[in-house]
Order: sequence, then structure tokens, then C-alpha cells
Amino acid sequence: MCRWMAWLGQPVLIDELLFKTQHGIVDQSLHARMGAEPTNGDGFGLGWYGSGEGPGVYRSVAPAWADANLRELAAHMESSLFLVHIRAAIGSPVQQTNCHPFRHGRWLFAHNGYIADLGALRRDLMLAIDPALFSAVQGSTDTEVVFHLALTFGLERDPIGAIERTVGFIEATARRRGATCQVQGTFVTSDGVSLWAVRYATEGPARSLFASADVEAVQRLHPDNPRFQRMTPDDRLIVSEPFSDLPGVWHEIPAGTAVTVRRGGVLEHRQFVPQPVTAESATPALAGAGDA
Amino acid sequence: MCRWMAWLGQPVLIDELLFKTQHGIVDQSLHARMGAEPTNGDGFGLGWYGSGEGPGVYRSVAPAWADANLRELAAHMESSLFLVHIRAAIGSPVQQTNCHPFRHGRWLFAHNGYIADLGALRRDLMLAIDPALFSAVQGSTDTEVVFHLALTFGLERDPIGAIERTVGFIEATARRRGATCQVQGTFVTSDGVSLWAVRYATEGPARSLFASADVEAVQRLHPDNPRFQRMTPDDRLIVSEPFSDLPGVWHEIPAGTAVTVRRGGVLEHRQFVPQPVTAESATPALAGAGDA
Amino acid sequence: MCRWMAWLGQPVLIDELLFKTQHGIVDQSLHARMGAEPTNGDGFGLGWYGSGEGPGVYRSVAPAWADANLRELAAHMESSLFLVHIRAAIGSPVQQTNCHPFRHGRWLFAHNGYIADLGALRRDLMLAIDPALFSAVQGSTDTEVVFHLALTFGLERDPIGAIERTVGFIEATARRRGATCQVQGTFVTSDGVSLWAVRYATEGPARSLFASADVEAVQRLHPDNPRFQRMTPDDRLIVSEPFSDLPGVWHEIPAGTAVTVRRGGVLEHRQFVPQPVTAESATPALAGAGDA
Amino acid sequence: MCRWMAWLGQPVLIDELLFKTQHGIVDQSLHARMGAEPTNGDGFGLGWYGSGEGPGVYRSVAPAWADANLRELAAHMESSLFLVHIRAAIGSPVQQTNCHPFRHGRWLFAHNGYIADLGALRRDLMLAIDPALFSAVQGSTDTEVVFHLALTFGLERDPIGAIERTVGFIEATARRRGATCQVQGTFVTSDGVSLWAVRYATEGPARSLFASADVEAVQRLHPDNPRFQRMTPDDRLIVSEPFSDLPGVWHEIPAGTAVTVRRGGVLEHRQFVPQPVTAESATPALAGAGDA
Repeated sequence: MCRWMAWLGQPVLIDELLFKTQHGIVDQSLHARMGAEPTNGDGFGLGWYGSGEGPGVYRSVAPAWADANLRELAAHMESSLFLVHIRAAIGSPVQQTNCHPFRHGRWLFAHNGYIADLGALRRDLMLAIDPALFSAVQGSTDTEVVFHLALTFGLERDPIGAIERTVGFIEATARRRGATCQVQGTFVTSDGVSLWAVRYATEGPARSLFASADVEAVQRLHPDNPRFQRMTPDDRLIVSEPFSDLPGVWHEIPAGTAVTVRRGGVLEHRQFVPQPVTAESATPALAGAGDA
Repeated sequence: MCRWMAWLGQPVLIDELLFKTQHGIVDQSLHARMGAEPTNGDGFGLGWYGSGEGPGVYRSVAPAWADANLRELAAHMESSLFLVHIRAAIGSPVQQTNCHPFRHGRWLFAHNGYIADLGALRRDLMLAIDPALFSAVQGSTDTEVVFHLALTFGLERDPIGAIERTVGFIEATARRRGATCQVQGTFVTSDGVSLWAVRYATEGPARSLFASADVEAVQRLHPDNPRFQRMTPDDRLIVSEPFSDLPGVWHEIPAGTAVTVRRGGVLEHRQFVPQPVTAESATPALAGAGDA
Repeated sequence: MCRWMAWLGQPVLIDELLFKTQHGIVDQSLHARMGAEPTNGDGFGLGWYGSGEGPGVYRSVAPAWADANLRELAAHMESSLFLVHIRAAIGSPVQQTNCHPFRHGRWLFAHNGYIADLGALRRDLMLAIDPALFSAVQGSTDTEVVFHLALTFGLERDPIGAIERTVGFIEATARRRGATCQVQGTFVTSDGVSLWAVRYATEGPARSLFASADVEAVQRLHPDNPRFQRMTPDDRLIVSEPFSDLPGVWHEIPAGTAVTVRRGGVLEHRQFVPQPVTAESATPALAGAGDA
Repeated sequence: MCRWMAWLGQPVLIDELLFKTQHGIVDQSLHARMGAEPTNGDGFGLGWYGSGEGPGVYRSVAPAWADANLRELAAHMESSLFLVHIRAAIGSPVQQTNCHPFRHGRWLFAHNGYIADLGALRRDLMLAIDPALFSAVQGSTDTEVVFHLALTFGLERDPIGAIERTVGFIEATARRRGATCQVQGTFVTSDGVSLWAVRYATEGPARSLFASADVEAVQRLHPDNPRFQRMTPDDRLIVSEPFSDLPGVWHEIPAGTAVTVRRGGVLEHRQFVPQPVTAESATPALAGAGDA
């Protein structure tokens, strides 16, 4: 029940998109215009690709609007691919290890939404995680469990497919346990080259998800906006909630859809269909990973 | 631009009033119903009188709704006189030394509102503080300056009078400097025996301030409310924003008014009239405290 | 690899023992005189019994010596039974949910030491926790896992026996996995009435553990010490490291020993012998708790 | 009473010098080998020049060794000019606004040491700060006051001279007030192009200060050290305490000395002699800045 944004495009100072944009995500953290919680003040995280090995992650339990360090980093760090997530906790503690994005090797992962009845399912879901990854779960959010399930189910080879298997597995587990079956949310992941995002709800309306329109269209519609004139065909923003009400700037991604964003501004859509796998059948990683 | 509550009455577990009350102040920290900022997530403080010497003060930069320790303390600490303040920072850093209430010896002090153009006045106001107290100002809020001015102007002998002199001095300084002359807010202070609260604005509408009604009246109006039936004639709550919409439970304190609350549920009103003193004339404490 | 102290005796202001004692535990947090890490600056916790339901717990990621709130609480809170733990993290994150003491209902639990090769064992140990308690594990320390295993193995009925079964189970699991078999440490737990403490190491020297001597003996040896003259026969301190070098004040508890402290200053010793149970045989709580 | 390091040279990932160096400054934060406090766990700061306008500053109240974000930033941020400071608080609160380095425009400033009797002098020193800068002092350290005095006394035009005037002014003020006259420490400042550092004590031994030797000499002495082989003639480290015991790598800067480091590895020494100026005479900035 959070907000997130992802940028893939020309290298920019992060605060161009984080603080200097009207209705940007930090502004949303105080006053979200869509979504269940008007305030998202339970920590945040920034994951970025740039210098050094793999992505860097800065996570803080302070509200994003009040974190002096976030403003410093954003104003002094350039990146061509980064994610920002702001959190509204629903039950789990406000601590850095519960802040998104989560990381594994070159991969980042974030989520806006929830798994119903997680308390009743958590043990089953944790057992299905590749035992080699079990101890890597450091916090207590549903999202970190989802991420490690997705890694178990092949995220690094087939991101969307792995999320389909993960969601299918969670839904099957909930049904088997007689728990409420409801996976709700938008997911985003990246390997530092491309971005993948999913909008899905087991039933009912799904959380919102938007992609920025093609640069040429945006520039034609708003020829006097200097910010838009600086955009290039490479640039693509994916956001849980649009930053502005300007017509033609944002395209809603339909529920039950996955998108892939590649360098060059490429944006591909496909259907997102959960795969009701069992832990045993899903992936060779689990073969032989039996319990003691 | 904050919220606060003060209790003087029978000893209660603090969470009775802090978390178990509908529309209580922590609930307000997420969703204030009156006032300028809907979110008050920039830290909070609890000052209480009980065991040990003088008041204890617990201050945290976390939003009150997310601070696990506050719930622990409130659920396990009894007090017959305590203040809670939740903060919405306007400019100054989110740090413990900027959280209210502030303390000096047996005295606590908190404030909801602001001094206009503080940046232009801060040096003049700091210079008027008793030099012996100068180094006791540890943070960067306007309120801590106001408190130390009030101590300089005699708070410990004459609380309301000292606040009148302080506000008058600030207004005179602003006029002299050609700055915007606007002191806005509600103030509350206590010595552990009584409570004093002020509602005032130099011009325009003042921040809201309410006192709980006499217990008998409240009980007569709401004979089926078990919480109200547990109240005694000793009990009095002063709040910046009422906890409920129940008719007859809250009395609005008029702008330009100071109230004194004493043991036994005594609630006295008087007019609050700023005294335009100069630093030199206000108090013997300053005589001989000349600059080098 | 931490330090802890536990008090059972007359009600005292907590800072009597926390800050006003020479070589007290906060002083030790900066400069421990025994033990592996000279600095214990990775958070701390205070668990106390007093007003309200069950124990209160105050935990912070700040070093104990630097936490202004801890000084406030200690100076303004009385308790006749409390635990303080200061942490030197070895690998797991510095976060509140990793700070001791941990709580379940009326029970508190803390630990100084470690489980070797925890990463390799964590999944097996988590699986042996009563499934109803699985989601209650919120952090990533070995101690929280040990506590929930001990609850699974009957801590609330038989504290020492449950810790013997827990340690035995961990050792058996390590041997079965071919991991290093080493449980090292001192454990302390309380239900608010009595205290239980254990000193144990699978092999090699165990972490230190001390109990304060009988009050009469202490007073006879140090007739001029005003602090000791205020002690009553009810008072007993258990500490991982003695607060002073005064002769006759502290008794070392031998390795492989469990002590029970009851009201009235009663201090009972018994041998501590790990029971090499399996998860299945240990307790009815686990019958029928099969994995999916 | 802290530790600091400054780098001017080829662009490096910050963790090359912060975490990957034996006896580096974060290691020193747990176990300083020289200096008054063995533990420096009361926050830290990193100031760096790179992307964006002016320097970025990351400051945290966590001990440097425990701050997960510092490791992330250091591992993913490159800079050719940066400062790191780790703090051991002596009296003033542990809060971000008390962490070094401090910033004004393009300038950074940090300090290791103290001003004796600061409480008695603070008001006089604050009064001598250019009134336009008065409200920029946000914390309660002596260093932030020193920095704003140095800005008042011309730091941006003549860094060493301004620090000489500042120290002289502080010493004169202490003498006039009958306070202990003792300024102790090492100072470092930068405008993003050059670095200036000072080692000074009014009397007695001064805090230590070292510069790395010329690269050719270091490489000749240690031909098998791969780290040293990567150094270029541009590189210069200034540190309060050397990172290693390797002979010939560090040169001690004598007490009463100021050094200037310029691009190209240039290291110039001069004497540091405090100038006993008065506030009025020191600088045109103060003319007309009289008290109201």
C-alpha cells in the first residue's frame, strides 16, 4: 500500500524526477491523490544503477519528505535506471529491512499492494523459498517473501514468468489453507538493463499503474513545457500514480498486464496470468531441497 | 503547526488517552480534521510527571503512529499530569532537540503555531534570552526560543504574564525590524502541579483550543458511555483539537484567552494581552546581562 | 556477544542500577572489561514489569550511551523486575526487531552469545518452531529463533527444561547438517514473578555470568557503602559481567549451570544439560504441525 | 574528539578508502589507535564533490560501522574530493545537525578537537557571527560555531587566514571572560578545488595530523603493494590518524602548521598563527552588524 516510480532513460540527477516534479512521489508521500492510504510515511527506498558493482540501495525509516539525506543524494547522484518506493506499513515494523526495493545480486524488486492473510501463509511461503536463499530474507514484509519466491521460480531467467508462477503459487497456497485468496498489487523489477512491471489483482480493481507516453507525443501536446522538451526517445517512466494531470502524458496499464521496458524507450505489453504451480514442480532449484 | 493534548486529573495509563480514544492525538497525527497540515509526522514528544525527579521527556523523530516504543511506554506508564505533542515541521530539521515538550527544571512547554519571519528575528530573540540560559537552547525551533524568552521574562513566577511579555517582545521586535508581525498559536506549560494554556494570534483566526467540560455535565449528557463514567471531578483535558464530535463534551477556549487548570478540575479563564516590553525593562534577570 | 543485567528485588528507579552504578552496563557498552567485543554499540533494550498489562519493552538502535530517551525513562520509571541488554551485532542488521529482550505474553527473553553457522541452520530451526508462532519472529537474530524454539519446547511450563531441549535440538541439528556444533552463551528469561538464567557452552569456556551475593554478606564486607546499606534481603542482580571489583559482592555462576531467582532473594542452582530431542518428539505443540 | 579523512586525487569509489583500507576510518571508529576516545560511535558524515551543484553531504546518527546506507553509498559513488568525519560526542546531542562536515555554498568544514568552556563562550561567539549567517547555525556543536565565525572572518577569500582570525578571536574571548583558554584540534575545509588543513593547540600537545607521502616515494618503498601501484601523482590523503603502520607512507604534519593541498598532488606547508582580532576589527562583513 505504497507508491513507487521507476526511470529508464537518459542519465538524470535523481532529484529532477524526485523533488523537482510537481506531484512527484515524495509529494505523493504526504498527499497521495489515488490509493488507499493518503499518507505514505513509513520509510522509503531508492535503488539505482550507476558507479560500482550492481545497484546501490538507500533505505530509511524516516518519511521521505523529512529525510535530509535523500535530498542530498538525489541532488548529487546521476542514474539512467532507478526505482523509488515510499511505504505505508500495514502491520509490519517500520525498519530498513522492510523498505523496498529489495536486492539480490544485480536485481531490484519493489511492490505496492498486499497478500491477504499473510500471517496464515507466511510459513508455507517461506518453506517454498530455495533453502539457499532462506537466510537472505532479513525483514518481515510480504514483498521480501514474494521476491525470494520469484527468485526461486526463475526471476533471473524469465522475470514475468517467475512472477506469474509466484502469484499462482501464493493463490494456490491460500486456497489450500482455506485462507482469503487475494494477491493485490503492482510489482517492478530490474536487472540494471531492462525493467519489468506488473499490474494484477486476484479479484476486484487492481492498484493503479501508468507509463509515460512516447516522447514525441508528449512534446507535440505540450510544446511549451521545458521539462518535456529535454526528454529523449530513450526516456520512460513507470509509476504507480501519475505525477501530473496533463492530458496525453500518461497511459494507464490495464489490470492483468505485464510490461517490459527496454533501452531506447521500448515498451512492450503482454497479459499477466498467474501459473498455479506447486513448490515441487516449479523449478529445478527446489529439487532435492527437501525438509529435514 | 502541530497538535497537542494535556491531561491533569486522576492517574491513568497514558494509552487510555493516547491510543484508546477515538480521534485521539496519534490518530490525528495521520489525519488531523482541523488545522493547516493534515499530516503531523515529523516527530513527537511526551512529557510526564510521575516517579523520579521532575518531569520525564520522551521525544522521537519517528511519526507518532509508527513509533513502537511510544505504544510500549503509553501502555505501561501511569501519570496524573502529562503532555503529548505531535509535530509538523515547517522548515526546521526533524531531530529530537526540535521535538516538544521542552523542559527546564520542573517546567514543560509546548506550542502549536509559528512566529512569522523567524529567520529575520532569531538573532534578536536569542540575544534577549538570559545569558545564563543561552547555551540551554539546543535545537532550532521557534518554540524553544519562545520558551527560553518566557523563562527569562519570569515564567516560573507568573506563567501567563511571562508569555504575555514574551509575545509582546516578539511583536515589538518584529515591528522594529520591519518584519511581518505575527505570533500565532496555542501554548501550554506546566510545573507539575498546575497547567497553563494560551490561545492567541496577532491577527486573523487563532489556532483552535478546547477544554473538556465539567465531568458531571459530560456524564449527564452521555450516561451510557463507560469511559465518561470512569471520569472524576478532578479530570481535565486541554487539547488543540477535540477528540470527538460528541455534543457538550468540549468547550472552545476563545482566541485571546489564557486558562489555568488546577487540581480538583478547576478551570479559570482570563484575557491574554501581550505586553510590549523591551528586553532591558522586562525583568531583573537581564539587568547586568549586557553584551560584551 | 552482548551484555545484560537483570534485577529482581525492591522497586527501584531504573537508573539507580543503569547509570548511577560504577561499571554499570551502559558504561560497559562503551568499555566492556571482559568479553569478545570491547564496544557494544549496536542497540539495546529494556524490558520491565510495572504498571499496565505484562512487561513493557523499550528498544532502540542507538548506542545505549547516546540514547537520551533511555536516560529519561530510567530516571522516571520504577520497577522491581527488569532486564537490560546491550548489543554488539555480529552480522544481523541493527534494527529494533533485533534488539533484546524479546517478549511473548508475560515472558521476556535475552541472550549473550551465538549459535555457530546460523545461516546453515536457520531454516531447520525456523521449521521446528510451533507454526502458530512462526509469524511472530520479526527480526533476524539467532536469539529470537532460540526464544521461539524454547516457547515451542515448553518455556512457559518449565523454563530451564525448555532451554535444555532447545539447546539440545540446535546441537543435534548442527551435527545432522554437518555444521559447526557450538551454542555459546548466557540466557535469561522471566515471567514477571521469577527469573531464570543459564550459562553454557557446547565446548570451550562459556561467557561469564554472575549473581550478586546475599545482602547480609555484602553489607558486612562493605559497612561504609551507602548503596549497599540500602539493599534488602529481597534484592538480587544477575549480570553477564560484574559492575565492580569489590570483593565478596559477586559470585560467579559456573558454566553448565542454570539459576532460578525468586522473590525474597532466593537463588537456586542446578546443572544445565542440553536434551538432544528432535522436533517431533519434543512437545505436543508440534504434533500435527506438519509441513505442506 | 573525532576522526576524519580527506581525499584529493583521481576519482575513486569512496569505499576504496573507507572500507577496503586496513585501519581505515570506519575501522578506527570502533578501535581508534591514537586519541582520547577509543570509540567514535556518535554519528558521522560524508561530504563529497561530484555530480550536481556543490558538495553533497550524507550525515547519520548511527555509528559509522553499523550504517548500512554508508556502505551502499561508498560502494556506488565516485569522487575525486571528499571528506569523512566520525564523531565522539562530548556533551552535545547525537543528531544529524551536529554531524560534520558542515556546508556553506561550495564549502565543507570539519574538525577534530574542542573549545574549552564552550558553554561560557557560546553566546559571545554566536554574537560575533555575521548576522546574515546567524540562523544558518542549526546544531549545537562548537565546530558549527567555529565554521560560521570563519565564514564571517573571510574563509571564502583566505581559508587559513580566516581560521587564524577565528582561533585568535576565540582565544581572546576566553581570556576576556576569564574562561579556560584552549582551542584544540585539527580543522579541514574545502571549496571543491583545493583542501586546507590545520593542526593547532593553544597549549600542550595537539591532535595528530598526517599527510600521505609523495606517490613515487610510497611506490618505491612498497613495490609489491597493488593498492599503492594504482596511485597517481595527483593523489593526496590527509588524515587525523594514519591508516597503516607502513614506513614512509605517512608524514606527520607538525603542530602549529597549516597545509594546502592542490590538484596535482601539491602539498604546501606554512605556520599557523592565531590572530587575536576583535569581532569589530576583523572583517568588513561585520561593519554595521551591530546589535539592535
